[in-house]
Amino acid sequence: MLRTSLSFLCRRSLAPRVLRAGLRTSARLNSSGGNTPMDFPCIDKLESRQRDLLAGPEPTYEKIVTGYQTYQHGSPFICDHGGQLPSMRIAYETWGHLNADRSNAILIHTGLSGSSHARSHAQNASPGWWEKFIGPGLAIDTDKFFVICTNVIGGCYGSTGPSSLDEEGVRYATAFPLLTVNDMVRAQFHLLDHLRIQRLHASVGASMGGMQSLCAAALHSERVGRVVSISACARSHPYSIALRFAQRQALMADPNFNRGRYYDGVQPHVGMKLARAIATVTYRSGPEWELRFGRRRQKPDQPPALCPDFLIETYLDHQSERFCLQYDANSLLYVSKAMDMFDISHSVTQRLERQRSQLQSASCNVCLDASEQPVSGELPREETGDEIIADLVRGVEKAMQPTLVLGVQSDILFPVRQQKEIADILRKAGNTRVTYYELDAMYGHDTFLIDVVNVGAAIKGHLENSD
Amino acid sequence: MLRTSLSFLCRRSLAPRVLRAGLRTSARLNSSGGNTPMDFPCIDKLESRQRDLLAGPEPTYEKIVTGYQTYQHGSPFICDHGGQLPSMRIAYETWGHLNADRSNAILIHTGLSGSSHARSHAQNASPGWWEKFIGPGLAIDTDKFFVICTNVIGGCYGSTGPSSLDEEGVRYATAFPLLTVNDMVRAQFHLLDHLRIQRLHASVGASMGGMQSLCAAALHSERVGRVVSISACARSHPYSIALRFAQRQALMADPNFNRGRYYDGVQPHVGMKLARAIATVTYRSGPEWELRFGRRRQKPDQPPALCPDFLIETYLDHQSERFCLQYDANSLLYVSKAMDMFDISHSVTQRLERQRSQLQSASCNVCLDASEQPVSGELPREETGDEIIADLVRGVEKAMQPTLVLGVQSDILFPVRQQKEIADILRKAGNTRVTYYELDAMYGHDTFLIDVVNVGAAIKGHLENSD
Repeated sequence: MLRTSLSFLCRRSLAPRVLRAGLRTSARLNSSGGNTPMDFPCIDKLESRQRDLLAGPEPTYEKIVTGYQTYQHGSPFICDHGGQLPSMRIAYETWGHLNADRSNAILIHTGLSGSSHARSHAQNASPGWWEKFIGPGLAIDTDKFFVICTNVIGGCYGSTGPSSLDEEGVRYATAFPLLTVNDMVRAQFHLLDHLRIQRLHASVGASMGGMQSLCAAALHSERVGRVVSISACARSHPYSIALRFAQRQALMADPNFNRGRYYDGVQPHVGMKLARAIATVTYRSGPEWELRFGRRRQKPDQPPALCPDFLIETYLDHQSERFCLQYDANSLLYVSKAMDMFDISHSVTQRLERQRSQLQSASCNVCLDASEQPVSGELPREETGDEIIADLVRGVEKAMQPTLVLGVQSDILFPVRQQKEIADILRKAGNTRVTYYELDAMYGHDTFLIDVVNVGAAIKGHLENSD
Repeated sequence: MLRTSLSFLCRRSLAPRVLRAGLRTSARLNSSGGNTPMDFPCIDKLESRQRDLLAGPEPTYEKIVTGYQTYQHGSPFICDHGGQLPSMRIAYETWGHLNADRSNAILIHTGLSGSSHARSHAQNASPGWWEKFIGPGLAIDTDKFFVICTNVIGGCYGSTGPSSLDEEGVRYATAFPLLTVNDMVRAQFHLLDHLRIQRLHASVGASMGGMQSLCAAALHSERVGRVVSISACARSHPYSIALRFAQRQALMADPNFNRGRYYDGVQPHVGMKLARAIATVTYRSGPEWELRFGRRRQKPDQPPALCPDFLIETYLDHQSERFCLQYDANSLLYVSKAMDMFDISHSVTQRLERQRSQLQSASCNVCLDASEQPVSGELPREETGDEIIADLVRGVEKAMQPTLVLGVQSDILFPVRQQKEIADILRKAGNTRVTYYELDAMYGHDTFLIDVVNVGAAIKGHLENSD
């Protein structure tokens, strides 16, 4: 036993692999205590992946989601921040049947990278991202409701986004206009007009979908009957912005990102992989990983390594490799930026609304010289803590619908204090039908995707209650 | 007012800067709704920084800390995982005076990237990283105690680490041997031998310093009088490993990292900057940023941008730029890996101890052929939840010192459940003098660096109590 254990250690010093590492290696065998230079299989893999991508096919995200319907908007779509989409398309899917008075529709809003494929159906039998929550008798009951889910504008799963072709047949890339959550929701209400749905039974969403849900309730209040907001916020807080900042920086630092103009070259695979790894860590903050991975290593018979080594590391490496080319890098930038900018405050939504209406009724011919600065009175004013809350309360003053606010105690991306803030401002605005639940679930932010028992039951109760 | 507000929007569409962006830009003015391609000043800055580094000076970390003393170990230092340092040096600083019976020494352990410069002194007047905690009458009272702080081996502030020269005068880089927290602590006890300090009044540390503190208490128990462990853990949990994994991956993905052999070329500035940004986000998980930055933007008179825009983003960008070359990239890899591997369990420390003793008494001439695998009986066994706790309890069975365990509720890197685990295993092992405090502080993991009122008082009470 002593001999075997020793061989295990000595192999690190004398294994043949030492010979392939190059630079000064042969000398090293007799120096530095005979220490073996570390191996970097993870870097070898990244480099080999880059070579594959040089020769390889288009990114896969354009083929991931199929079987959706599309709505083509008939006129240019003006964005809150002043850009516009001359042509705007929304990909959507539906489940269940619209009743005679068209009053049983539920609009489901997705998280950052979600597609319209929330559940399987005849045109696409793959399981959807909320497969266990939507269906006959399930939390969102398709025997009772007509359920709609869209890919947000800015996304890459069929709706107009940075990877879409502009009117010249060139991909927008980072000439795509900045979007807001309200832009996404307004686009969805154009779809509802097209479907001749005047009023939703409910607007339902988690994460960014919860932002959209609140936005729909506050800004299109007469068209929304009930609201579900899960693990969302009334305004993005700096900590959430910081977590998304890290992802965007990792992505943009990839030389292949090329300021967003990568569609004709190699995809920014490494940056997207890093961004995805960071995102996954922020989505799964709960103690789940302790039970699932603990401190187990992938190859316990090998010496420890600087490359992925513990199972949690190889899991993250595998997940991020698998998903990094399943979402468009520019969509990640635009949609995550829309999340950062989300703020339901009255002053913010009013300013954007005013700007947009002016653009809608004007042409840019009336623009002032570019050197002219906006007057300082136009700038958002610094608010005190009390004023921030008062501004938020005013922002939801029309949102009097029965509302379910659900938070998860192990969520670090949208912590429960932000869920309480939503419930508090709605109540302060006079909404007497706010239900607030906190879940002691172990999956962090992703709980809404997984915990069908607790999350599902809360949704079902809220949607089918007759208060 | 209408006219000015409109100009603000239209400027985004027609500003002259659109003309510099190149590719298809002039056509874009008449297409895509006249949207302006986004600017990327953050990428411009990274690229310009890279150019500076090509022409620029050595990294600054070797000059940051001055005025320390050094201890040169007289014989090769054998590491837990089988490598060795033929020559081993420890940088250290001291404050206060050793009393006649040499019984008033306190050893302070640093976090990941800490230097020995915990407090200013005559040889280095710059404020130390625990300046407000150490000094006459302060939490760690230099009127009463002789205080020692070292740079850990593996670091880059004077102790032997990957940036040190090996016996051939070449920097170790990633031929440096893997280190454990116990290696760091054993090195420190060699320094204590040199200083003729047989027994510490106390071993004090936070974060990785808390791991070292526990390690000293458990493995060198007869030499440690009291223990302070702040925001540490008894074993690194997968979530903490995941957060460090993200940093290491960001660093290693930088082409300039060059598998750790960057000392003669351009430093992996971009990777270190990303790693530092991720680290900062994990260190400051509390609601502090809401008060400090809120949703304020750096340039509220400019349109929103994909590059740093909110104050929290420019803060993180600035901080990570400022610090990214103040710590050696290879040190980050090795020391963060040592943290991942930390596990005070009996089975783990015994296995490492056995391996090391064998190496110490043998030479590699007796090695088996490299193709031969260690027998499976040598591999760590999968443990159940109860066995894990029992193993941890056995790991601290000699740590009967009065021990202060301090946790911070807003810490996501070392959450309070891990602090409770430390207190629980010590108590289960029979230690009846464990004090456990939880702080409702707003600075997340970094609270130990900032909150002198709460953290300082707890330390002082524990160090000066005569139980």
